[in-house]
Amino acid sequence: MRDDTQHALCHVKPLPDYLVKRYHGWRATTYTENRSWYRRLADGGQHPRAMVISCCDSRVHVTSIFGADQGEFFIHRNIAALVPPFAADGKQHGTSATVEYAVTALKVAHVVVLGHSSCGGVQGCLSMCDGHAPELEEETSFVGRWMDILRPGYARLPAGSDAERLRALEKEAVIVSLQNLMTFPFIASAVEDGALTLHGLWHDIGEGALEAYVPEQGRFSLI
Amino acid sequence: MRDDTQHALCHVKPLPDYLVKRYHGWRATTYTENRSWYRRLADGGQHPRAMVISCCDSRVHVTSIFGADQGEFFIHRNIAALVPPFAADGKQHGTSATVEYAVTALKVAHVVVLGHSSCGGVQGCLSMCDGHAPELEEETSFVGRWMDILRPGYARLPAGSDAERLRALEKEAVIVSLQNLMTFPFIASAVEDGALTLHGLWHDIGEGALEAYVPEQGRFSLI
Amino acid sequence: MRDDTQHALCHVKPLPDYLVKRYHGWRATTYTENRSWYRRLADGGQHPRAMVISCCDSRVHVTSIFGADQGEFFIHRNIAALVPPFAADGKQHGTSATVEYAVTALKVAHVVVLGHSSCGGVQGCLSMCDGHAPELEEETSFVGRWMDILRPGYARLPAGSDAERLRALEKEAVIVSLQNLMTFPFIASAVEDGALTLHGLWHDIGEGALEAYVPEQGRFSLI
Amino acid sequence: MRDDTQHALCHVKPLPDYLVKRYHGWRATTYTENRSWYRRLADGGQHPRAMVISCCDSRVHVTSIFGADQGEFFIHRNIAALVPPFAADGKQHGTSATVEYAVTALKVAHVVVLGHSSCGGVQGCLSMCDGHAPELEEETSFVGRWMDILRPGYARLPAGSDAERLRALEKEAVIVSLQNLMTFPFIASAVEDGALTLHGLWHDIGEGALEAYVPEQGRFSLI
Repeated sequence: MRDDTQHALCHVKPLPDYLVKRYHGWRATTYTENRSWYRRLADGGQHPRAMVISCCDSRVHVTSIFGADQGEFFIHRNIAALVPPFAADGKQHGTSATVEYAVTALKVAHVVVLGHSSCGGVQGCLSMCDGHAPELEEETSFVGRWMDILRPGYARLPAGSDAERLRALEKEAVIVSLQNLMTFPFIASAVEDGALTLHGLWHDIGEGALEAYVPEQGRFSLI
Repeated sequence: MRDDTQHALCHVKPLPDYLVKRYHGWRATTYTENRSWYRRLADGGQHPRAMVISCCDSRVHVTSIFGADQGEFFIHRNIAALVPPFAADGKQHGTSATVEYAVTALKVAHVVVLGHSSCGGVQGCLSMCDGHAPELEEETSFVGRWMDILRPGYARLPAGSDAERLRALEKEAVIVSLQNLMTFPFIASAVEDGALTLHGLWHDIGEGALEAYVPEQGRFSLI
Repeated sequence: MRDDTQHALCHVKPLPDYLVKRYHGWRATTYTENRSWYRRLADGGQHPRAMVISCCDSRVHVTSIFGADQGEFFIHRNIAALVPPFAADGKQHGTSATVEYAVTALKVAHVVVLGHSSCGGVQGCLSMCDGHAPELEEETSFVGRWMDILRPGYARLPAGSDAERLRALEKEAVIVSLQNLMTFPFIASAVEDGALTLHGLWHDIGEGALEAYVPEQGRFSLI
Repeated sequence: MRDDTQHALCHVKPLPDYLVKRYHGWRATTYTENRSWYRRLADGGQHPRAMVISCCDSRVHVTSIFGADQGEFFIHRNIAALVPPFAADGKQHGTSATVEYAVTALKVAHVVVLGHSSCGGVQGCLSMCDGHAPELEEETSFVGRWMDILRPGYARLPAGSDAERLRALEKEAVIVSLQNLMTFPFIASAVEDGALTLHGLWHDIGEGALEAYVPEQGRFSLI
């Protein structure tokens, strides 16, 4: 590597010691006990059945909720678990790339969109669209521009208290993402062919509840 | 919700039964035993110490490797754990939004970039840049355009076998992301102020090994 | 400060040099590498998930056993990890103050009582109650009066060898503390509301073992 | 155990899974690598050189700051690291019991009082004495009655901003505890005999600084 690269990275620091210790603990237990499986995963590649699109929120551990084994879920996590509409404009679309890779390369059989309660990203969208967060409306706000994806969901919001509207918009975010997924040609055709199914979930962190979108009812229902 | 929304979502299906069963198992055990903490997380919000940028790869469970509690890590996962350079052009940049939210809203103290072995995204970049994957060079390839972020890393690759070059490029991906992180003004200033530190890791799935980038040495070293 | 204060403190000495050196080593390494987190902890306050009540014994490092990060556990340590029963008599109750602060101010989600093997305090209680330590029965013995808290546990001891009875009493100490915790109104109500859970552990120093109290079985079980 | 004991403990829950995993990691690494030492500590008892009296605050890890080995420090932690004055009244004095055990049974050579910045207990005392926290003045407030110990320190506070007064009172808490330690006959005589020395420290969490009380100067000085 060239000297200027090293210079630019002079701020990179060692991992905090408690994480080093925990990693060594993981290696001496979980890894050691499952080494044959990890080696096969490394040699044979991943064959996940499902892709999960979840929020970055530290309180949502999809691997915990669904008892996931290593190799089981291809997991994309972004702000508010949003999928933008299809736009083949040659620009960088990180989320679209994850969906493309999951469906066309890994050929997952399911794409699950997992929203959740108390979502900071959705709250930001609500504040912005209500006119209470001008900083998010600025062109330079990455969070604001990202949450623009949810504006069609905001437009469908019923009247209600702040808490009711936040919860409703969290669920609209799942619906918007499900709708946008269907705008991708490779998804629409996989769905038509019966090779792929889509699922929409909303998770209540405090109650531990999980609701699934039921298209026949046009609403979410406890599972 | 309007009827056309419901129509567009007629392909949304119930969650596969094995996931419903596992969720109920989680709710009856992990959730029930930790309800007090989940409720506080819901009421009090998240205060994660670190953001982790990881790959979507199903074989990488960062929460397992580091014994993470719910609420501990803000986790973004995309193809190859890449961060694009700063570009305040009013377009949608999902990864930039996650970094902005983590650093400016949550004020995390660490951003950890976690690459890994046998990375399909990095392999695609290598094939594309070697001229063996013309489909990835097409404007309409989301994965190809996303992996363009790694081209500066490809340009630095030393000669070697295919396996050596893949491994080297996986590590270059971490370095490129660390470099790009520093192009974000809010990251550069937080790093300068001592409010944020950056870390680069590469994980060997089969060996269970973890290497950290050491700027003084200009290379990765086992931890 | 007045002169008589200084006079009374004339016996205060400089820190031993080996501790000064270690502190400077910590500051040059751990602190420097984690400065961003320490600053955020200082500015943003603590949000610990759990309170741990442990013994003062120098052989028990709860932060090590549980890979704790700074800011993760609110830790009270006293002789034998005992909690006295609730007594709102206007007197000074240091342990009760720690529990009150943890539950009502910090709103921790867990209180963990951690007993251990070869506990000198519990051994003292056993000797005292067996009639072999008259000095501990004197009114002026702070340790003796403190260990009075454990007398209900002594009353439940089965027959056995000295070693068996010591071990049984160490575990009874955890049970007595768990029982006494429930006599505090703010704890009982938080437990009833699902905002707080209690846990009882006993740690074998020499074997590195950890046992948890299982109420359904009425005994401790290896974890 | 009797049935009513079990009933009273029906709210005791299993340890959260992430702590179980971390413990098993510790056992497979730190414990296994140091088993001979842990066994000797278990068989031969503890012989700590020093007692440290620290705050329960989750941000203060005295074992980290001083690179403590297992068996090295006898550690008492309470709200604000306070020591009450000697009172041989037959009542329960948990902190006095820890000091008695350390000095008369373990014969430690040092007692170190370690205060710190941003101390919630000291802040409570300041608010209470300033007349802004009537709830802490109630007889039933365990924290309020505990912080009464610091009233002599409040009486010595110079004028200043809130932040200056908080910091000054945090240091007065160390001085009050050092003064109170000397009221215990077994401490005064051990100090007179040259068998024990006392030390007062104040730790700045955000800056990683450590100041020691220097009696000749009547103030704290950076070490």
